[in-house]
Amino acid sequence: MRFDRAVPSIDMRADDFILISVDDHIAEPADMFEGHVPAKYADQAPRVVDLPDGSQQWFYGEIEGRNLGLNAVAGKPPEFFNVNPTRYDEMRPGCYDVHERVRDMSAGGQLAGLNFPNWTGFSGQVLNMGPDREVNLVMIRAYNDWHVDEWCHAYPERFIPCGIVPLFDVEEAAKEVHRLADKGCHAITFSENPAGLGMPSIHTDAWDPLFAACSDTGTVLCCHVGSSSKSVGTTPDAPPGVAMSLSSAMSIFTLGDLMWATFWQRFPDIKFALTEGDVGWIPYFLQRAEHALDRHNGWMKHESPNGKSPSEIFHDNVLCCFINDGVGIQLLDRFNVDNLCWESDYPHSDSSWPNAPESCEELFGGVADDLTNKITHQNAMRHYQFDPFSIRPREQCTAGALRAEATDVDTVTHVGRRADDSDIEAWDRIRGVRPKAKAKA
Amino acid sequence: MRFDRAVPSIDMRADDFILISVDDHIAEPADMFEGHVPAKYADQAPRVVDLPDGSQQWFYGEIEGRNLGLNAVAGKPPEFFNVNPTRYDEMRPGCYDVHERVRDMSAGGQLAGLNFPNWTGFSGQVLNMGPDREVNLVMIRAYNDWHVDEWCHAYPERFIPCGIVPLFDVEEAAKEVHRLADKGCHAITFSENPAGLGMPSIHTDAWDPLFAACSDTGTVLCCHVGSSSKSVGTTPDAPPGVAMSLSSAMSIFTLGDLMWATFWQRFPDIKFALTEGDVGWIPYFLQRAEHALDRHNGWMKHESPNGKSPSEIFHDNVLCCFINDGVGIQLLDRFNVDNLCWESDYPHSDSSWPNAPESCEELFGGVADDLTNKITHQNAMRHYQFDPFSIRPREQCTAGALRAEATDVDTVTHVGRRADDSDIEAWDRIRGVRPKAKAKA
Repeated sequence: MRFDRAVPSIDMRADDFILISVDDHIAEPADMFEGHVPAKYADQAPRVVDLPDGSQQWFYGEIEGRNLGLNAVAGKPPEFFNVNPTRYDEMRPGCYDVHERVRDMSAGGQLAGLNFPNWTGFSGQVLNMGPDREVNLVMIRAYNDWHVDEWCHAYPERFIPCGIVPLFDVEEAAKEVHRLADKGCHAITFSENPAGLGMPSIHTDAWDPLFAACSDTGTVLCCHVGSSSKSVGTTPDAPPGVAMSLSSAMSIFTLGDLMWATFWQRFPDIKFALTEGDVGWIPYFLQRAEHALDRHNGWMKHESPNGKSPSEIFHDNVLCCFINDGVGIQLLDRFNVDNLCWESDYPHSDSSWPNAPESCEELFGGVADDLTNKITHQNAMRHYQFDPFSIRPREQCTAGALRAEATDVDTVTHVGRRADDSDIEAWDRIRGVRPKAKAKA
Repeated sequence: MRFDRAVPSIDMRADDFILISVDDHIAEPADMFEGHVPAKYADQAPRVVDLPDGSQQWFYGEIEGRNLGLNAVAGKPPEFFNVNPTRYDEMRPGCYDVHERVRDMSAGGQLAGLNFPNWTGFSGQVLNMGPDREVNLVMIRAYNDWHVDEWCHAYPERFIPCGIVPLFDVEEAAKEVHRLADKGCHAITFSENPAGLGMPSIHTDAWDPLFAACSDTGTVLCCHVGSSSKSVGTTPDAPPGVAMSLSSAMSIFTLGDLMWATFWQRFPDIKFALTEGDVGWIPYFLQRAEHALDRHNGWMKHESPNGKSPSEIFHDNVLCCFINDGVGIQLLDRFNVDNLCWESDYPHSDSSWPNAPESCEELFGGVADDLTNKITHQNAMRHYQFDPFSIRPREQCTAGALRAEATDVDTVTHVGRRADDSDIEAWDRIRGVRPKAKAKA
């Protein structure tokens, strides 16, 4: 029990929150590779293609990028959420333009954010999949240079940088972690389950060079839901609500792997983050893991790394985050509140933007201010070595102060297309449903 | 919020609990088919075979039954838990002998239990898999006759009957539900995901005749973890603790399917039960489902059956249960306490036997007696149409009264084999690990 319910609680108002999100996304701009790819490789750089159906699609050689659809809906009314691919001009510019992004963040009362990729895959899978590993490495470095030097450094007090790494070559990945750290970037997006990508699991020692580099540089390994290129589902003919409700189950698997991994014996200090998985389900699985250790270790013979049980590993080494998770807050006494963070998920469909301050006021009612502040920004600052207050005075970082600077931002997105049957059809295609099989058994 | 925390709480002592488990198991006795299979089919009845390695194994024709191992460890110290198959004489007689079972239940302070199969598979899969459907049907009926007439009726105040059905023939399954109901059996073990067994999913209308029969007879469809013949895992080389910690994830998938199913429109009153999945994770997924409906229904276009949202469906129609789930109790106000039940899971490895009264005293401390009584026995009695008090006066049904009748029972099991490397090897075989792949990537 790490949270004392007896701590006096003084409810914070929406305007008082300082919000740093550990999970936002960029719909990477079409010109992202310009100036970052050596001339020799310029014609191999990924590009945006206008397709005959009117949509736009990234291609890396022959490889299609992840579609935009639900990943770029910020500001749209739900009936305008599209599963189908869309075009840049059908999303609000804050999705891809850093200046507009910062204005949107201010209008939403958000000080800063850590941004994951969109079309490149949440762990940069697409840039890892090219047939020529040398070219992949060039493009991954170009992504990182664009992301850190161009996007994040445009407003260094507003962005926590997060790099991607060549997962196909662990020694090169370790080098890239050092190169990123030298740029001030202390987060990478790892995979929630590298075995899902056809790579060695975290139960091998294959990742040791990467883990060593993260340990040396204090780099957090983020495991974003979907970063194994797998998704959760029951049957192909299940209604979409099933998979939409179960997405966090991918993080359950990641938590399971992390709690029982043995690499902690070799790297006791590295930190992993469960990204976009929410937290309200975590206490049950910690309880269950302790039960399994207590009940089954007669035959499992698990050797606790450095004497730490599965839930102790979680409490000490695994960060987690949520958008708006009332169940998680009700169970706050079962978490290490030094490792809990808040996220916005802008511009994805789950985001609370532009109403995060109001949803936080409701969510954190009854939680002591010092704990609230840890969760909403202090933990993110410490874990990611990020200090916006050295650039922007703390009192100018509150939701109220930021919103006062962006009163002209229209938070409703007026471009786009009303969802229709083509979106359900797109969902079915993604899930592999055969149209005929759907209606009847 | 269906649970009023203001209800005064008077802590119950271990001796005062009345415990009815909705999930125990029988290690089916070797002579179970005797007297229940017509002479014409007698030589096709499943049988126990002594294998050269000293273990015993059920065979239904060429089909191997599920192994016993961790499913028959009641009373053993954890270092004697075996994953490997075992022999009947290496388990305590309460696993397979009804008279000894009742003595064990009394010694554990437990009034009654609903028993699932063991070797036949938790939804009777093995008896559904034979090449001749007519023979399968004979054996399924024989199982049910043995289970209801012989096992349960030996002590009708101590057992809630639960049948298996021919999942391969929905019309025959419906008939068997009626036949079972006529015998006083109001539970069947359905599959947590019939599509996992190669059958139509619950999102088709293929199951309508079975659901209609359950609706007509007030029969609960139980969905036991593992009853889709699938298990949860991350990678084959993961330590066994991972899968042991994640087993409830199978129930998460079942909950997802049930919350979004549309058959409720046709069968608004039937009840499903999530069995052995615990409950502490449920509130998060209810919250998430409501979010998905609110945020995504612009394109999903889910039509709520009878106007009920996913979490309303759960609260009204889905029973759930737990062995010892402190997280679930902490979240009690997020459940419909009329649909929560307690389970023992005797003789499986997760069971709290013989200490359930003491673990319940601790678990239900702070919960009002009327709610505790609903969870520990009243809900099970109502949902399964089971009335032990008509046979045995209520005051003789408490843990204390039952234990007083069984003071001579030795609750430590002295037969068996200390777990060793062969158990880990058995685990690896079950999980499909290639020995060479395990050591290194």
